[in-house]
Formats: sequence, C-alpha cells, structure tokens
Amino acid sequence: MISSADALQPAIILVRPQLGENIGKAARAMLNFGLTDLRLVAPRDGWPNPNAGPAASGADIVLANAQVFETLANAVADCGHVYATTVRRRDLVKPVVTPEEAARTIHAEAGRSALVFGPERSGLETDDVALARTIVTVPINPEFGSLNLAQAVILLAYEWSKGVALAQPPLNELDPPAPQADLEGLITSTVTMLERVDYFIPPERRTATERSLRTLLTKPAWSAREVQMMRGILGAIEKGPRGN
Amino acid sequence: MISSADALQPAIILVRPQLGENIGKAARAMLNFGLTDLRLVAPRDGWPNPNAGPAASGADIVLANAQVFETLANAVADCGHVYATTVRRRDLVKPVVTPEEAARTIHAEAGRSALVFGPERSGLETDDVALARTIVTVPINPEFGSLNLAQAVILLAYEWSKGVALAQPPLNELDPPAPQADLEGLITSTVTMLERVDYFIPPERRTATERSLRTLLTKPAWSAREVQMMRGILGAIEKGPRGN
Repeated sequence: MISSADALQPAIILVRPQLGENIGKAARAMLNFGLTDLRLVAPRDGWPNPNAGPAASGADIVLANAQVFETLANAVADCGHVYATTVRRRDLVKPVVTPEEAARTIHAEAGRSALVFGPERSGLETDDVALARTIVTVPINPEFGSLNLAQAVILLAYEWSKGVALAQPPLNELDPPAPQADLEGLITSTVTMLERVDYFIPPERRTATERSLRTLLTKPAWSAREVQMMRGILGAIEKGPRGN
Repeated sequence: MISSADALQPAIILVRPQLGENIGKAARAMLNFGLTDLRLVAPRDGWPNPNAGPAASGADIVLANAQVFETLANAVADCGHVYATTVRRRDLVKPVVTPEEAARTIHAEAGRSALVFGPERSGLETDDVALARTIVTVPINPEFGSLNLAQAVILLAYEWSKGVALAQPPLNELDPPAPQADLEGLITSTVTMLERVDYFIPPERRTATERSLRTLLTKPAWSAREVQMMRGILGAIEKGPRGN
C-alpha cells in the first residue's frame, strides 16, 4: 500500500547532520510512516556511518538507499517544492506553514517535494532556507522548545502519512512547478545579466540583493515552461532590437 | 499562556515504565507541547530515577511534579476519559480512534482526560486497557512498526497542542499582493519593452503570447515591493551597461 504512493513521497533531506545516531533515528522515524527517500547533504562524519545502523532499529533499507550530496542545491535539484523546517523566525519573507498544512499541500500538488532539516544544534543556515519556497514550523511551547532532529522528522512524516489513504491521483493538470535545477538556471542567468549592467551597486549590498532576487523568482512556483518563457523574455530584452 | 489551559490538560500516564531515560524523554516530549501532568504507575526502577533528568533536556519541572501511583486505577481516579494507547489490536471491544480524533475529543469534552502508555517492550496489559473507554492507535506502516515510548507520547502531545488556541503558528507578516494597478503597470511596461525588441513575432501569435505573459506575471502574487523590483530588473537589463 505504501509503495503505490512512492512516486509522490517527499524526500527527507538532512543538511550537514552531525551524529550517525541521529541519521539512524531519522530513518526509523521515516519508515514508521512509510517514507524511504532519505538524502544527506555533507554529513559531518562521512557516509556510511557505523552509528546509524543500530539507531535505525531495523530501518536498514532507508539507510542503504540514502543518497549523499555535496550541496543542498544538488539534493533538491529534482524537487518542485522545497520546504525548509525551522524553529526560529527568519528575516526571509516566505510563507510559514504548519506540518499539517505542508502535508496537505504535498498531497495536493504534482511533482516531488523535499522536506529539509538542518544540523542538530544550529538548524538551517539562511542560505539553505533561501532555496525553499515555504517554511514549515512546528508550533511548540514558546517557553520550552526542545525538539530534536528525529522528533521533527517523525512529526512531519506522521502528518504526511495521514494523507496517504486519502491521496488522490493528481487530477489537476496544472503544470507542476519546475524542478529546482531549472529555477537555479533562471536565477543564475538573471544574476549574470544584472552583473553585466552593473545592477549590483554598491557591492556591499550584493548579498542582500541577490537574496531578494532569489525570493522574487522562487515565489511564483513557475512551471518548467514558464521558467523557460521568463528566460526568453529576459534574454530578448537584453539582446535589444533585432538587426534588420 | 500554556498554564491557562492547565485545567483541561490531559494527564500522561506511563504504566510500569522500565528505563528512567525513557521517562525523561517522555517528559521532554510533553513539555515541548505544553503538557506537564506526568503520572507514573509502578516504575520498574523506583522513583526518582537518576537517569531521567539528563534525558529530559531541561524539562525538569515535569519530572519534579510527576506523581507516582501503585495502580493504574489510582492514577486515573480523577480522570473522566481514559484513552489507552496500543499498537496491536485487542480482543476488547472498544472504540479505536486516531491521535487526531482523540485530541479533538479531549478538547471538546469537559473534565480531565488521561492518555495511558504501556511499558517499553510489551505495551499495555489487557487489564490496563480494560480501564479505558477508548483505544488510541497511531496508524503506522504495517510493514515496519517501531514507535518507541517517547515517540508515541510526542505524537499524542503534538496532536493535543493543535487544539490550544495560542499554539498557532506566528501570524506571518508577508506583504500582501500588489494592487492590480501595480501589476498592470508591470505587464504594460514589459509588453512595451518586448515590442521594442520585436518579441511578438509572428504578429498573429501576439494575443496568445500576451496572454501567457499575463499569466506568468500574475501567478506569483508579488507584493508591491516585488513588482517594483521586477520592473527595476527589466529596466536595468533593457538599458544595458551604465555609461561611465
């Protein structure tokens, strides 16, 4: 039963996880609710990690199939919807949803989603969160927030699993959002164009401006076709009037 | 804020828990979601247990206030609604609900409820379950059910917390979408730029292309500030490199 929904399963992405034990616990949490697509970005102690297996309590299949990436951008390249899980408020202006709302959206939309979790102590960096369209925050006791990595994973996996029985085949024929790699292509080419016209002046504001640009172009959830159209428009305007 | 709901908080009752570490983890799980009424029935290694504190990661108040009882009957004596959490099916004929349904009922009914959890390995005995009016079962992967005590507690606590009015996600302060007039300004100026670079060729496709452009720029729901940024980007690219 779970396997029939595999194609729509969200990937669970652990960014720079520190302890192998926590990777194992996350795998166990996932498999309890039928999730199997585990991706690791630059795990601190390398991979495989001998401490992961015992902590997985039998969820070995998840560890065996885990994929390792050097960057988060690579890990989400095939994902149309990237959700960053955070506890603290961020300066980034992005929609913030509960695990329940995220799960509902994941089931409703076509394409693969990614649920991204930061390192045990520090959580996701601002640049990691910038890759996401949406932030997921578990509402916890403001006077005692102490949710560990595997607990955050299990709550998201649990919410996702609730929709499995009810998950409809994607009836809507809207184009799904472009894979993240397409979006990165648009962002990169726009930055290049803007460099050529000296847009990033003064230089000390460049990081902030680039981040705003990323938010601007990530927000639309454009399809691959739409991303292509936007690139075409920018390219045509840059090129100027056609010669005779 | 959490304390205002104390009168209606369900008690978390651990029946014959084995490891102090798991009692500490359960306390931590509880406090994350604002629950503080921990009750222990005949803990195997007595109480207090020196291993509980470190595992509670700061949820000491829950451990300090934990009450110890000799029997489950005593522990639930002041509770009007007793929910027994189980994984396996039981011969007892009782209603079986999900954590979500249990949480809804707990919030809807007057009086104190009890959520009862069995020992780590064996779960609740049939005689314990017999005390309950309702069975709560977390729906898990039928091919891999490996939920530990603290995980079961956190899922129930999490579901309960959803019903606490103030435990909502922070109101997000996203900019609202720009007024339609701003959006029209962006669309019109983009069309003008594209005309200048002979984008609308062949002319007979112009209507369809303009419609796609409108869809492209309408979909993002950009704020006024973002619409302005997009206009700035397009203008900068059109203008080309700054003269010296």
